[in-house]
Amino acid sequence: MEKTKEQPKRNKLVIVCSKGSLDMAYPPMMLATTAAAMGMQVDLYFTFWGINMISKKTIDSLKISPVGNAAVPMPNILGMIPGMTRMMTGMMQKKMQKIKMPSIREMIATAKESGVKFHACSPTLDMMGLKKEDLIPEVDDIIGAATYLELASEDAITLFI
Amino acid sequence: MEKTKEQPKRNKLVIVCSKGSLDMAYPPMMLATTAAAMGMQVDLYFTFWGINMISKKTIDSLKISPVGNAAVPMPNILGMIPGMTRMMTGMMQKKMQKIKMPSIREMIATAKESGVKFHACSPTLDMMGLKKEDLIPEVDDIIGAATYLELASEDAITLFI
Amino acid sequence: MEKTKEQPKRNKLVIVCSKGSLDMAYPPMMLATTAAAMGMQVDLYFTFWGINMISKKTIDSLKISPVGNAAVPMPNILGMIPGMTRMMTGMMQKKMQKIKMPSIREMIATAKESGVKFHACSPTLDMMGLKKEDLIPEVDDIIGAATYLELASEDAITLFI
Repeated sequence: MEKTKEQPKRNKLVIVCSKGSLDMAYPPMMLATTAAAMGMQVDLYFTFWGINMISKKTIDSLKISPVGNAAVPMPNILGMIPGMTRMMTGMMQKKMQKIKMPSIREMIATAKESGVKFHACSPTLDMMGLKKEDLIPEVDDIIGAATYLELASEDAITLFI
Repeated sequence: MEKTKEQPKRNKLVIVCSKGSLDMAYPPMMLATTAAAMGMQVDLYFTFWGINMISKKTIDSLKISPVGNAAVPMPNILGMIPGMTRMMTGMMQKKMQKIKMPSIREMIATAKESGVKFHACSPTLDMMGLKKEDLIPEVDDIIGAATYLELASEDAITLFI
Repeated sequence: MEKTKEQPKRNKLVIVCSKGSLDMAYPPMMLATTAAAMGMQVDLYFTFWGINMISKKTIDSLKISPVGNAAVPMPNILGMIPGMTRMMTGMMQKKMQKIKMPSIREMIATAKESGVKFHACSPTLDMMGLKKEDLIPEVDDIIGAATYLELASEDAITLFI
């Protein structure tokens, strides 16, 4: 199949990070670090629970959310009680260590070195009563939806995670 | 508006709204109202739990889902019991009022005035036993996946929320 | 670059499937089968809990996640206990049968026949200790984030579900 004459490949990736659970923190960071390594321009926009990923207070305590995995815990009464959730989280985190998966903090550092841009959502910070100094130093700026839309409109691959 | 030579900016935003919780109702409405104010064409496609956002019965009772914020409630037994969830919802909603965040109903009205189009997913309505008259009057039409894909294929910024 | 007068339509759809609950398994499958029927090229990338959709062990036991529907179960203590969740799941599944909604397994077979490509995420399989033979035969290959990004960069409609 002949390519590129008609259709240029996109080289931008703009992701909205809206979740505060460990399982939904990995996908944007894995895509961001991979895309940056491939030479793509990457912008991450942290909003709502996604602020957990860039807040000093929460970055190291992200947990696996049992809900995305409804096939497993839902039919079992144990799956809904917090003790079980903690156990599952522990098991998953041990597996992650075993396959030498870096932590979110480490992935953010790697991404930052590769040029990934970190944007915090302004109204979310207001809502949560957080300021710039409550966020990790990798955060580049605090922006609103209009700036996000400008980034996304530049023929980027867009994802909401 | 003058454009850059190499890359035309996209001026369409097409969002699938699939969640029925308050925290996942705000992001599409904030993006939609902002995009419309910037002159973009915006289409919202409400499917699965997203029907909660446009159903007369549920629009005013959307709740915060504790799960997106797994970093906070999961390790704490209180986080999983409904009393705590109600308390968290109340706290978050009070903060939202404090920073004068409009309600979802108000944001939908604003979006509608700015020309945002509201589409309800036909198979979801069948599945939930709902009819057009069960939906808020802002809904423009009831469409299926094929029509959504046509809208999304017109070089739009696409998001699934 | 020459364009059609208004806007060239995109004919590719690339979806990340990251959830393991029934309610979030239907949207990608409905979009994929519809898009393929319209002649679009469709790639599905299964990652994290999305592996539940293509794992032999879990494909037939996907459950409705009560959380996307936070408007309904959250204020009610019954909504958080597994018995209620099972009941809701049962009700929804009965409704699905009533409107003759095909199962996920059936939709995957239909999609495969229409040329939809199924990609499993390599690091997720490592993390979950799964191998190719643990996956349903419809899976085409095991790929990483870089290959996903290449697919997504080809002017595709991109969604993260």
